[in-house]
Amino acid sequence: MNMKLVGMCLVTLTLGYSMLGCADAYHNESTPAGRLVPSRLLPVPSDVSRELQDSIRQAASAPDSLGSIPATPDEWRAAIAMYEKPEQVREHVEAIKEKFPVHVTAGTMAGIKVYVVNPMAGAERSGRRAFVYVHGGAYISGAGEAGLDEAILIAYHTGMKVISVDYRMPPDSPFPAAVDDSVAVWKEVIRECKPANVGLGGTSAGGGLALAVVLRLKELKLPLPGAIYAGTPWADLTNSGDSTAVNDHVDSALSGGNEWLLAAGRWYAGGHDMRDPLISPVFGDFSKFPPTILLTGTRDFLLSDTVRVHRKLRLAGVEANLHVFEAMSHADYATLPDSPESREAYREIALFLDKHLGR
Amino acid sequence: MNMKLVGMCLVTLTLGYSMLGCADAYHNESTPAGRLVPSRLLPVPSDVSRELQDSIRQAASAPDSLGSIPATPDEWRAAIAMYEKPEQVREHVEAIKEKFPVHVTAGTMAGIKVYVVNPMAGAERSGRRAFVYVHGGAYISGAGEAGLDEAILIAYHTGMKVISVDYRMPPDSPFPAAVDDSVAVWKEVIRECKPANVGLGGTSAGGGLALAVVLRLKELKLPLPGAIYAGTPWADLTNSGDSTAVNDHVDSALSGGNEWLLAAGRWYAGGHDMRDPLISPVFGDFSKFPPTILLTGTRDFLLSDTVRVHRKLRLAGVEANLHVFEAMSHADYATLPDSPESREAYREIALFLDKHLGR
Repeated sequence: MNMKLVGMCLVTLTLGYSMLGCADAYHNESTPAGRLVPSRLLPVPSDVSRELQDSIRQAASAPDSLGSIPATPDEWRAAIAMYEKPEQVREHVEAIKEKFPVHVTAGTMAGIKVYVVNPMAGAERSGRRAFVYVHGGAYISGAGEAGLDEAILIAYHTGMKVISVDYRMPPDSPFPAAVDDSVAVWKEVIRECKPANVGLGGTSAGGGLALAVVLRLKELKLPLPGAIYAGTPWADLTNSGDSTAVNDHVDSALSGGNEWLLAAGRWYAGGHDMRDPLISPVFGDFSKFPPTILLTGTRDFLLSDTVRVHRKLRLAGVEANLHVFEAMSHADYATLPDSPESREAYREIALFLDKHLGR
Repeated sequence: MNMKLVGMCLVTLTLGYSMLGCADAYHNESTPAGRLVPSRLLPVPSDVSRELQDSIRQAASAPDSLGSIPATPDEWRAAIAMYEKPEQVREHVEAIKEKFPVHVTAGTMAGIKVYVVNPMAGAERSGRRAFVYVHGGAYISGAGEAGLDEAILIAYHTGMKVISVDYRMPPDSPFPAAVDDSVAVWKEVIRECKPANVGLGGTSAGGGLALAVVLRLKELKLPLPGAIYAGTPWADLTNSGDSTAVNDHVDSALSGGNEWLLAAGRWYAGGHDMRDPLISPVFGDFSKFPPTILLTGTRDFLLSDTVRVHRKLRLAGVEANLHVFEAMSHADYATLPDSPESREAYREIALFLDKHLGR
């Protein structure tokens, strides 16, 4: 059985090379266009938690695609509505709150919708600190309570008050709405808290947005946060990172999602240059950034975005800590909150914020 | 052309699934044995140096294998001799020394062959410090001058005296000879230098050996180094890390090398349990380890060994810094010493050692 698979791969490899040989405009013998990787069966890894193994096993039998790409604003709205049914979102948030108890209050700051997530009485560890959270969801999903789950995890694991920004999104409000809304909330938060006592961060699009907000605060000469958390940041909306090729069809969460994400990114950019650092912060200037903690996994579709940001921070002389989890796919630490890896990840974030935020 | 490739991949995927469905002993519908990844063409990444791009392009047209696996001691000797022709090794070392000038002296310490690599006069930055270097080469190659190149790079980039241990190896001297020889040299070095002023490390098998030596020093209750450098450590000779599957045929240096490395590991283990922490230190106890810096790349066959060691160090409360370079294969930072990534990597090592070693 295995030998058949191996045999098939070799045929695929040979066919691939000979096919490439015909496409002279694209490739010639001396300069290969890239590396041809044969088809493989990736075993469920042994040295990770049961929870992560189960997730990998389940994803392996799921369809290898995020679905067809919406083409119009209404199709985008329909696709999001399908992913985020209000009843299911509410149940999901209640389930998370049951395991990770916090108080959640909906409100507005500077006219922007926010959720304030407070640790339970007694669990609060640092009353003069706060964390501004920007949710993920490829800049097209995660509105309202659908963007709350990681805010809850951060409040629970760090003992800090978290202000989750329910920023405006496409198709109605493309870039720079998300950046502007986050900056507006930031300005309100630092009227009550010393900026050095406040962290800022998020995961995926939220990780990228957090980095973009710091770039924008630098432009505006506004005070910067005391520390940044960039969880597997979508820092390059052109998806030019190498892991978008290497980990395509490897990542459990974003497998086969390259075109889908690119389309979402184009909706977000709304005609602006995708390489604008406020859209794709990996192309920005990281000098004078606050200390930054970055998380990713070896199977993460955005592993490369994460490590490229880490390297650019280090080249700019910034204190930046990178944590890469074995066999984790995109944002597994947030979506598998019961796993030991998730607790370990948020413990690193809590330690990092505690070390770098003012008191 | 591209569409044909994509089409072929879809066929491969479908075929793969249906073939798996027939092999009930290995797989059933509810519990997939793993994730089937279709064949892909990995483009040369855009956001890395010209040197790294060239290396990736060259490797893509090289045979995708380390060659046939030697079966007898004489076949191992012949394979090593083929890789390491004395004339070529000498030329290689001279070329490295020309670009990264240092003084090299061959000698013995505690009866073990060593090379002492000193920075040039004026380039020495820390006379009371030293670095004990253990070379890589899968525990079967890198003897004599063939193990010198990274020792030269470390002496040059850190300004420290480097003692490179020419430890005994299989087929003549399997485990624990390499550990014993390194411990013997360590004991000699700390007769002249404070242990807290001395670093220890290496790349690949050398990275794994450095970790094993610390585990052994703990067993012997001997003083530990002030800091450790584990460059893409071969810390699991059973190759159970997930990247040995994900990055197989992706890594430029070790592509298709899994069986070859496992065979080399068995020669090294010489009948001992491959999961013995002194052979595969990822299975060891990392409590009380010195501060450790780890390097790897997103295409590294041993990415998982590196990040697993990092996580276990962190879980043991050890200060451990991880650096992952975009699209780097196994040990590219050492084998592409002219690349900006290499200089960046050794700069991180120099900063880390300078911060953590005593003065």
